[in-house]
Amino acid sequence: MDFEIERIVELARENRARVLQLQFPEGLKRYGPQVGKRIKEHVNVKVLLSGNPCYGACDLDYDTKADLLVHFGHAEIPEIVAHNVCFVEVRSEVDVIPTVNDALALISGPRVGIVTNVQHVHTLDSVHHHLESAGLRPFIGCGDGRIKYRGQVLGCNFSSARAIDVNEYLYIGSGAFHAVGVALATGKRVIVADPFLRKTSIADVDLIIKQRYGLIAKAMDAHTFCVLASTKTGQQRFDLAFELVEEAIRRGYDAYTVTINEITPWTLYQFPADVYVNTACPRVAIDDSALFKAPMLTPIEFEMILGKRDLSEYTLDEFSTG
Amino acid sequence: MDFEIERIVELARENRARVLQLQFPEGLKRYGPQVGKRIKEHVNVKVLLSGNPCYGACDLDYDTKADLLVHFGHAEIPEIVAHNVCFVEVRSEVDVIPTVNDALALISGPRVGIVTNVQHVHTLDSVHHHLESAGLRPFIGCGDGRIKYRGQVLGCNFSSARAIDVNEYLYIGSGAFHAVGVALATGKRVIVADPFLRKTSIADVDLIIKQRYGLIAKAMDAHTFCVLASTKTGQQRFDLAFELVEEAIRRGYDAYTVTINEITPWTLYQFPADVYVNTACPRVAIDDSALFKAPMLTPIEFEMILGKRDLSEYTLDEFSTG
Repeated sequence: MDFEIERIVELARENRARVLQLQFPEGLKRYGPQVGKRIKEHVNVKVLLSGNPCYGACDLDYDTKADLLVHFGHAEIPEIVAHNVCFVEVRSEVDVIPTVNDALALISGPRVGIVTNVQHVHTLDSVHHHLESAGLRPFIGCGDGRIKYRGQVLGCNFSSARAIDVNEYLYIGSGAFHAVGVALATGKRVIVADPFLRKTSIADVDLIIKQRYGLIAKAMDAHTFCVLASTKTGQQRFDLAFELVEEAIRRGYDAYTVTINEITPWTLYQFPADVYVNTACPRVAIDDSALFKAPMLTPIEFEMILGKRDLSEYTLDEFSTG
Repeated sequence: MDFEIERIVELARENRARVLQLQFPEGLKRYGPQVGKRIKEHVNVKVLLSGNPCYGACDLDYDTKADLLVHFGHAEIPEIVAHNVCFVEVRSEVDVIPTVNDALALISGPRVGIVTNVQHVHTLDSVHHHLESAGLRPFIGCGDGRIKYRGQVLGCNFSSARAIDVNEYLYIGSGAFHAVGVALATGKRVIVADPFLRKTSIADVDLIIKQRYGLIAKAMDAHTFCVLASTKTGQQRFDLAFELVEEAIRRGYDAYTVTINEITPWTLYQFPADVYVNTACPRVAIDDSALFKAPMLTPIEFEMILGKRDLSEYTLDEFSTG
């Protein structure tokens, strides 16, 4: 894995940094001590490792004594102004082509959108070429202000998928969430090519849709709503939280706003409610729903409860900008 | 319980606050929604409840969109400059005198120091009078820059106990930590009067001392140390953390610094180490030691490992100032 030690050392020198803060997402945190040691071999700095959980470039740990924050594992989110932050994307070195080749059997085409996360974003030109050679018409879309690279999707933003008019999508990456997100956001079939496991599949949206409608149905009888507003740099929707609370109160419900950094079952235990409404990262409501003692809804799902949105068309919660 | 709604409403009006953030310690968090509702009945503000865990006035939740922070359940720490914070101490209304009366049987005297936490600090004059009537010579000490009231102790500061020359102490309050802290900090016997349970006892320092030496002994063979530096407003000792790491490295150990807001077993799981050294709240190392997979030492205990301190005299870690 390339932690770009040389670039960090150079930046530390240029900025005359005395203290560096290194922030890793959960899957890379264990490399922190050795990356810190390697940096200190080349430049005289103190190194702090961020111990706070981190899931995206929306969550920059500025709460520190450091002169420079080095954020690993995610691409910069262009719309978030990041001061004194160096993003080290830690791209994957795995060859995606064999799995893309396997996926050809599942692709009907002819127009195929290619989407991925930042780990594999440098492979998209070769994937494009490979699909073209196979007689397909591949497209790579540009995302909105939250998306740095063509074809890149985030757990909270599928704008690069929506930007193109295709019959179906090929998602390159592991885990179910992004592929299901593309399918829900576009209404199209998504073929998944996981280059780590060399496994191909079709994104299964049915299960998640059933789960979401199950929670929405359960929330229909609720009286007390606890609306969560995140303080993480790129997850702040305080105005939305306030609006939802006011709207709920106008309609005769009990509702209040909780501001919180890390949303966990044990922090929410202190806030009794029939339903939690999460204006922070949409993935918390969807991936972690089974962990909470009351249903956790997205703002869009809550608007279904309030009768402001039609129940029939399920829509994902996204952080999108122009 | 007195949440001082009127004073908060007045302050909100004076400050033309549009958004109030209410912060409660864990034991009072469940009152948040109703306190928020009562405030909103009198003044047109939006209310945010802080969902982040809180254990003291050392931990002010400024990470918010609010104009005014209302912090409940703790006294201000004078040495910490707190901007736009209103402290609502939520004093206890329990009558302490019956339990103090029970405690007389345990007090030898003649010179008795009276100590307590902020909940009962308004009762100390009557306790003083009561002890005097019983033929004892009671003393109430002034603490250092971290202590607001005469006779008040914190989990991290026993300066008001040390300030007086007495034969023994009477601690008024519940829980074991503060009383044991006074005993360890002064080397004197501490009689505990718990007015909630109407129970009296002698603070037992032996158990905690045995536990601490057990952990110190276990840490003697350690090679890798993870030093924790807190970002909470009144728990920051980055320089101490850096010094400890440098010192450990000079002596041939592996050591690194992790900066963290909430110290929990699951956040530390990402940082493998033989021993954790906690420069944050001393109570985390002592109260929660059984939760962590490796021994967690205070900086003073770590200096025993490094050979910089004599092993024979156990000293508590405190946050003290002049």
